[in-house]
Amino acid sequence: MRVLITGANGFVGRELVRCLLARGSLRGRVIDSLLVLDTDLQGLPEDPRLRRHYGSITDVALMRRVLADGIDVVFHLVSIPGGAAEEQYELGYQVNLLASLELLNQLRNKALPPVLVYASSVAVYGAQLPAKMNEQAELRPQLSYGTHKAMVESAIIDLGRRAEVDGRVLRLPGIVARPREPNGLRSAFMSDLLRAFAEGDAYRCPVSAQATAWWMSARCCVNNLIHAAELDSNQWASQRVWQLPVLHLSIAQVVDALAASYGQERRSLISHDPDTQLEALFGRMPPLKTPQARAAGFSHDGNAAALIRNALNPATPRHLSLTGDTIHVAANQA
Amino acid sequence: MRVLITGANGFVGRELVRCLLARGSLRGRVIDSLLVLDTDLQGLPEDPRLRRHYGSITDVALMRRVLADGIDVVFHLVSIPGGAAEEQYELGYQVNLLASLELLNQLRNKALPPVLVYASSVAVYGAQLPAKMNEQAELRPQLSYGTHKAMVESAIIDLGRRAEVDGRVLRLPGIVARPREPNGLRSAFMSDLLRAFAEGDAYRCPVSAQATAWWMSARCCVNNLIHAAELDSNQWASQRVWQLPVLHLSIAQVVDALAASYGQERRSLISHDPDTQLEALFGRMPPLKTPQARAAGFSHDGNAAALIRNALNPATPRHLSLTGDTIHVAANQA
Repeated sequence: MRVLITGANGFVGRELVRCLLARGSLRGRVIDSLLVLDTDLQGLPEDPRLRRHYGSITDVALMRRVLADGIDVVFHLVSIPGGAAEEQYELGYQVNLLASLELLNQLRNKALPPVLVYASSVAVYGAQLPAKMNEQAELRPQLSYGTHKAMVESAIIDLGRRAEVDGRVLRLPGIVARPREPNGLRSAFMSDLLRAFAEGDAYRCPVSAQATAWWMSARCCVNNLIHAAELDSNQWASQRVWQLPVLHLSIAQVVDALAASYGQERRSLISHDPDTQLEALFGRMPPLKTPQARAAGFSHDGNAAALIRNALNPATPRHLSLTGDTIHVAANQA
Repeated sequence: MRVLITGANGFVGRELVRCLLARGSLRGRVIDSLLVLDTDLQGLPEDPRLRRHYGSITDVALMRRVLADGIDVVFHLVSIPGGAAEEQYELGYQVNLLASLELLNQLRNKALPPVLVYASSVAVYGAQLPAKMNEQAELRPQLSYGTHKAMVESAIIDLGRRAEVDGRVLRLPGIVARPREPNGLRSAFMSDLLRAFAEGDAYRCPVSAQATAWWMSARCCVNNLIHAAELDSNQWASQRVWQLPVLHLSIAQVVDALAASYGQERRSLISHDPDTQLEALFGRMPPLKTPQARAAGFSHDGNAAALIRNALNPATPRHLSLTGDTIHVAANQA
């Protein structure tokens, strides 16, 4: 079993690599080779099953080499995030749209239709969401990012109909808690709030306490990605696009859960300075019903406390974080 | 004013070239240069305003040369038809999807946003149409052709939102009466029926007499394409996709109109041998209401008699058709 992950060194990609290596199998077969593709692979563990491919998915010749020995399952995660893709249109166009189409076109020429799990986004819906939302909501993307995700979804449905690529599309909500670094995501505040609270830093939140958003931890997200790969091809051939179940929580509810884990006194570190556009794009998310996805075995984190636990692992005391930087600083201070 | 037509030598393209040359202006400005792009340009008239570009829209370098001196209005008509695109997927993918995206990307880098009129298709809806249909119907394309048209529509909406390309999408129904030659269109029977009846030939219709379809003459289609180019950019910036009004007629109604023009005795030349798939794809079209498109000035042919008149021009006796082939045959027979 040969498995490829694009964007393997991203926030979700690293978690998926760890999880697949730990499982050791997929779709009932042992994973011999886990091909990881990214422009930087430093965050990945040492493991004899890893096949490292440095480079960009926009490099057509590289992709041909990566796929030359055949492929059974592809997790297509890499993308230029919404904010960055909006400002650097050409980059988003090349990565999010053209490279994804080229990947699909290379996959459709394989002897057996490979399984493809595609990380799409709730950005396909745009900001004009119905008050009560379900899995049949209309697509009206308002950013190039969401437009390109929706276009790739269409291509995957079409190649599924043609039985050339066995695609499964997951529409992801905001995944937390990403590292606190510039990442081009307009929804970055969701992770920044969690990280700041966990680390006891002051945080000025760019949406109001009443703002409601859709949440999922990276751990839960990876479980869903793997579940998507495991779905039976025959049973689910007519359903290729899944809106993942999400936790629908206000910022206030998330802060309550954080305070319960990290101490009520930290509430005072959080202030609000709502940005009108962010509040409109990410702060007015309605409840979202996903009975089909739930029936097919997809799930959200369960509740706010579990979200915080899965996303931040608060049981681990902060001073045990053993990154290179931390050790370096500690040595200097000593 | 510089105007480009892709697929200029196609059935609709030739009619559009003739009409634009006769008008002489567009959007209130004189047409100095009418750039015509196609792999064959033999069907086009001699005119000093024509700039002939032989080649394929998939030739990126050619497209750069064509657009190098600037462009004001583009009519993007070329496409691989539905049946052909389904059988030769790679060809449809290159022409209908990738080349269209590349054209858009070249247009978005112009100093002023060019006006783009895109010939989309009712194939974007697929075959599962609601019993009463309107302009808000969902897109569920069932062929790669319709999928790729829908994807290009999305890209045009996105670049319109970004104010980079001033696009206008028209969803065309079956356009008649195409020449009777293999053209890769699954809806070719609509034209074949008209041509056969007009020429007094026996015709075995692959859908039933009760089959209902959406009809439009090439002349009416061209009027709509030009009207789309003329729409005021500011007034219609929020509406870029138009479902054209259509004539909803059964085969029996069309045959009635044909018989009224060409003689009741020719009815006996028409027999029916329904193909289940064709009947499902093109013979169960419901009534279609298009109040928005009508309010914006788009129109259908009016009625079945006008459709026949516009499509076949029955007042012109057959022997006056002066194509090279006809003259050649006549000379041989003489």
